[in-house]
Amino acid sequence: MKGKYENLIPAGMTRYRCIVEYDGSDFHGWQSQVCGNAVQDHLERRLKEITRETVRIHGSGRTDSGVHAKGQCFHFDCRWHYPPETLLRALNSGIPAGIVVRKAAFAKDGFHARFSARGKRYCYKIVEGYPTPFEQRFCYGIAGTLDVEAMSRAAKMLLGKHDFSAFGATHASVERENPIKDLRRLDVVRRGKKITVTTEASGYLYKMVRRLVGGLIKVGQGKMTPEALLAYREARVCDAVVPTAPARGLTMEKVFY
Amino acid sequence: MKGKYENLIPAGMTRYRCIVEYDGSDFHGWQSQVCGNAVQDHLERRLKEITRETVRIHGSGRTDSGVHAKGQCFHFDCRWHYPPETLLRALNSGIPAGIVVRKAAFAKDGFHARFSARGKRYCYKIVEGYPTPFEQRFCYGIAGTLDVEAMSRAAKMLLGKHDFSAFGATHASVERENPIKDLRRLDVVRRGKKITVTTEASGYLYKMVRRLVGGLIKVGQGKMTPEALLAYREARVCDAVVPTAPARGLTMEKVFY
Repeated sequence: MKGKYENLIPAGMTRYRCIVEYDGSDFHGWQSQVCGNAVQDHLERRLKEITRETVRIHGSGRTDSGVHAKGQCFHFDCRWHYPPETLLRALNSGIPAGIVVRKAAFAKDGFHARFSARGKRYCYKIVEGYPTPFEQRFCYGIAGTLDVEAMSRAAKMLLGKHDFSAFGATHASVERENPIKDLRRLDVVRRGKKITVTTEASGYLYKMVRRLVGGLIKVGQGKMTPEALLAYREARVCDAVVPTAPARGLTMEKVFY
Repeated sequence: MKGKYENLIPAGMTRYRCIVEYDGSDFHGWQSQVCGNAVQDHLERRLKEITRETVRIHGSGRTDSGVHAKGQCFHFDCRWHYPPETLLRALNSGIPAGIVVRKAAFAKDGFHARFSARGKRYCYKIVEGYPTPFEQRFCYGIAGTLDVEAMSRAAKMLLGKHDFSAFGATHASVERENPIKDLRRLDVVRRGKKITVTTEASGYLYKMVRRLVGGLIKVGQGKMTPEALLAYREARVCDAVVPTAPARGLTMEKVFY
């Protein structure tokens, strides 16, 4: 089991487990950056103010700049020991607009936000035409109409445990990570002019969700058949035939433990 | 009838009538400002690029900095004459994110966005607790719970054609404007932790909707009885007993013509 040692809570410390929501539009993604404007940076700075310790938080995984989250999970260890409700109030009173910590709890020994995760659900929102200013930050507006029936057919064909190298970001990233992922769910649902793609998998390669959506959009536009998209996955070669859908449409919905 | 001359379309010119939506969070209100960041400024700059004329637009009314709109209406005259669909596409391709022109049409002679308006509908959104990052820009998060039943009772008592000076922003503004307004609708509806106040009236004093909502919130918090709020209106004296609810919860929904 990977990360075995990191799963243990150091003596004298308390491990907290939190759920955080964010509108990713104005942040430089989840993972700590030199600029200090990643979601992780804002949370760590606030935790230092609260606990007076240097706290390192561990997220379930990264999200790119512009990607949102409704159910990002993170944990951290510190000597500060107060009820989780106190932590929740303190965190929310000193972080920027656009980030809200929704839940806080004591974590059990052995829990690790990243290594204990069994899968994740993401949603990608598409709007045909101009999105309203109220949904603009959270969806991708597309010209013309999409053939959702064809997209659904293609989505079903991609399901299962396969090598998803073709949907990774670059060859470099594929080399570092096991490209075999179990894609358990890939739904395409239309409500009026809004189309939502929902995906659940054991894990994802870097940019995999946005590239799956990019491929499905090409199918929906009639520029690629569902069979061609399947053949693309089977060739296991990552290339620009399949575009990467813009970050703003993507939301990390839930981490499964 | 006021504004009679402005209702006539000058010879050789075309009058267009548009509906615009905006997320007011990042703009300095509707009305043109020296800083150039009002919604009107962005639209006029884009119209100048499209028509190569200096175009002055007329909105149905102002909205304050931070207030949103789903149905703001404006008109303008220019020598440029193309189908409204062309105008719509051109406008939307060159204005900042957060502003979307939803409709464009030729206006009839006699139509004036402000003087022809017969009333307006506004919505104000309140959330008990922390709003999610996705609704944060568009609603007011409030600690504790509100007694919506009491708010509804107070709202009903305020209805009708009355002097609303007490809900104006300052004595100065009241002096300039007729304080008699016909408040036709004032609803308070709860859905879970979300409370929406909807109002329709012939017109509003400056900040009137936000001060009506401020008064209703005080009633909902048990800090004022519905009868006291009615008595406050009847005293016709604008004072700080009734607070002004924050701009971000307010959206101009529709202008009636």
